[in-house]
Amino acid sequence: MDSSQAERKKIIVIGGGLVGALNACFLAKRNFQVEIYEAREDIRVAQSVRGRSINLALSYRGRQALKAIGLEDQVVSQGVPMRGRMIHSLSGKRSVIPYGTKSQYILSISRKNLNKDLLTAVEKYPNAKVHFGHRLVKCSPEEGMVTVLGPDNVPKDVTCDLIVGCDGAYSTVRSHFMRKPRFDYSQQYIPHGYMELTIPPKCGEYAMEPNYLHIWPRNTFMMIALPNMEKSFTCTLFMPFDEFEKLLTSNDVLDFFQKYFPDSIPLIGEQALVQDFFLLPAQPMIAIKCSSFHLKSHCVLMGDAAHAIVPFFGQGMNAGFEDCLVFDELMDKFNNDFSMCLPEFSRFRIPDDHAISDLSMYNYVEMRSHVNSLWFIFRKNLERFLHAIMPSTFIPLYTMVTFSRIRYHEAVQRWHWQNKVHSIMKHRWIREKNK
Amino acid sequence: MDSSQAERKKIIVIGGGLVGALNACFLAKRNFQVEIYEAREDIRVAQSVRGRSINLALSYRGRQALKAIGLEDQVVSQGVPMRGRMIHSLSGKRSVIPYGTKSQYILSISRKNLNKDLLTAVEKYPNAKVHFGHRLVKCSPEEGMVTVLGPDNVPKDVTCDLIVGCDGAYSTVRSHFMRKPRFDYSQQYIPHGYMELTIPPKCGEYAMEPNYLHIWPRNTFMMIALPNMEKSFTCTLFMPFDEFEKLLTSNDVLDFFQKYFPDSIPLIGEQALVQDFFLLPAQPMIAIKCSSFHLKSHCVLMGDAAHAIVPFFGQGMNAGFEDCLVFDELMDKFNNDFSMCLPEFSRFRIPDDHAISDLSMYNYVEMRSHVNSLWFIFRKNLERFLHAIMPSTFIPLYTMVTFSRIRYHEAVQRWHWQNKVHSIMKHRWIREKNK
Repeated sequence: MDSSQAERKKIIVIGGGLVGALNACFLAKRNFQVEIYEAREDIRVAQSVRGRSINLALSYRGRQALKAIGLEDQVVSQGVPMRGRMIHSLSGKRSVIPYGTKSQYILSISRKNLNKDLLTAVEKYPNAKVHFGHRLVKCSPEEGMVTVLGPDNVPKDVTCDLIVGCDGAYSTVRSHFMRKPRFDYSQQYIPHGYMELTIPPKCGEYAMEPNYLHIWPRNTFMMIALPNMEKSFTCTLFMPFDEFEKLLTSNDVLDFFQKYFPDSIPLIGEQALVQDFFLLPAQPMIAIKCSSFHLKSHCVLMGDAAHAIVPFFGQGMNAGFEDCLVFDELMDKFNNDFSMCLPEFSRFRIPDDHAISDLSMYNYVEMRSHVNSLWFIFRKNLERFLHAIMPSTFIPLYTMVTFSRIRYHEAVQRWHWQNKVHSIMKHRWIREKNK
Repeated sequence: MDSSQAERKKIIVIGGGLVGALNACFLAKRNFQVEIYEAREDIRVAQSVRGRSINLALSYRGRQALKAIGLEDQVVSQGVPMRGRMIHSLSGKRSVIPYGTKSQYILSISRKNLNKDLLTAVEKYPNAKVHFGHRLVKCSPEEGMVTVLGPDNVPKDVTCDLIVGCDGAYSTVRSHFMRKPRFDYSQQYIPHGYMELTIPPKCGEYAMEPNYLHIWPRNTFMMIALPNMEKSFTCTLFMPFDEFEKLLTSNDVLDFFQKYFPDSIPLIGEQALVQDFFLLPAQPMIAIKCSSFHLKSHCVLMGDAAHAIVPFFGQGMNAGFEDCLVFDELMDKFNNDFSMCLPEFSRFRIPDDHAISDLSMYNYVEMRSHVNSLWFIFRKNLERFLHAIMPSTFIPLYTMVTFSRIRYHEAVQRWHWQNKVHSIMKHRWIREKNK
């Protein structure tokens, strides 16, 4: 198919969030006629939207996707580099565990700014259009049609050649996959919820070291803090819902913080802490797995709609962005032929998205309970050492996931092999220590 | 609540299959106003419906539920007792492994007859009504309303105090649970499909020993046969879909049966075998798990709608029937108060339904590959021996599941403990054998 043919094909993207907007850029760049339908108002003009995390960690996979549509430099310039974890112990002691080499870092990015930049980028393509305030009411992939409800409240049928579902964890598009023959599906809420709090700037400067992801690991729960460009930090408290439910009064909250996060109270401020704590209830976290991402050559899911994951590896957005990049690479390989690309996208990508889902669930335990053990620090040092002497043979899991495009499921396979080496070293290390 | 109050409450049961019809009997018996909406025509007048298994194994749990509505004797009189497994080896040798003691058996029952009997039983209650040919199009539990589409094709709103979803594995009622806060859900198809074949009577008599469940275990696949009242057997071939797909011609099918089930060919008949094989495609099998069976006090799921399981423990119908019985017991305990019964039903019943789901998946491997090993036969004998000398301490898993109402999840716990004993005995047995 040459580009003039491609131009005539119409693609509807459901959802104008991060993955939807990025995907629209990729597809518009290929000369398709692209229409995004987004249920909310334009975030560039509307009041801020609550209920989603405020900032995100951008790493290599996400950057490569942004690079492919020429947006990497702009986005990176608006991020705050984080070169390692800064662990806050109960006593207030802080220690650093680097993420990788001295030149490696992840970026703390504002969700809202990134989404704005992506929407503006989409609209620069004359063959792309974003319809805000349009809710999907019916999705008929076989007929190549969607029905949307705009501000005029009159249902409108729109035809297309392909529907791309980027409508997030609670995807309406995905609900049409449920009766697909032999479609396996699971959705699992973890017992933890999350809540966002803010550490404001102190005398116009960052109140803590800015170039780190701060972690307060407390075994069954934890708090983290990511720096923002405007010199504040956004803290996220992760805790089982039944623990959240025990904190009913201002005093409960202050006592709890005094007991577990005493160094954070002066940083957040007592009044703001109590006020923010009761502003919104704790939000749930869901992990979703599908055994197929496509319906024939009519419909494909990407991002959270295809594989919502828990946030503990900082890969949710990165995996979603890599979906778009992988799909774009397949469109090159199969010359824009949907009937080839869609099944291949499911076949190729699902093992990777399932792998990062499992790794994120694994890291959920690691971050809150292992990160402050001596063995964790020893292992991280050991990994760095082994990586330094055998850089292509031995790559730490975090490095493979965060600073490479090694396929997620291959990273897991290599990690299992490397763990055998660790295990041998651990026994020797324990023996040394006990001498 | 006294019975006059109960009488005024209206319950809508969605689905008039086995569980829906039985449930309606239980609820009508409690003096509620009960309305069943069933999408299909009345099976008592319509042509036979294909696509579901023809016969089922009724065991203790199912019988206890039928007993509670006074239907046990009638149903049992129409079943064929099966006292054990009859294993057909590749060489044609047959050996028997009893299910339990001499007086214990399961019953091969016709799905269609049982369903007819249950529907007739419902209609005997003046306060119950069955609406056939009515498809559920909308379910609004919070408003206490369903919208159904009858033969006149005009959507009709019906109000009620409780909606009971008994609409099977692909439940429409359940789809309204998907956005319930923190609702975990999974659906998993197994790689195997199933296909039904028939062994007709031979000279007016059963062509094989009637009082057994016949099994042809062949490791990755298997065939079973259950006796019918009219002296035929219904065979079910379980095999991975990709193996089914390899059998494209009559010769492929005959060669396959000649290789793996040679003794069955003269019983089924070459012509009928080939004809039936290509009549319908192999059917999928799905396992479904939900983390909640109820929505507030408005809606509850039972049977396959709540927990479709694979058929390898013969417990699908029995578990569904026990759901109704457990719910009935809770209605006694909580004096017909839905707001108490529904949450308690979820809390109490889910561990059991999840346990029988896992056991059925486990038996899927056991039936097709372990059942013909020496170790399996040794273990069954050992279990019978231990059960005989310690009848209340040591109960074989099969007995607990099939011939008792020990809660499924407790049966699993006891079984794990008993397995430790087995494991010790196994080592001794192997040592003896190798001497």
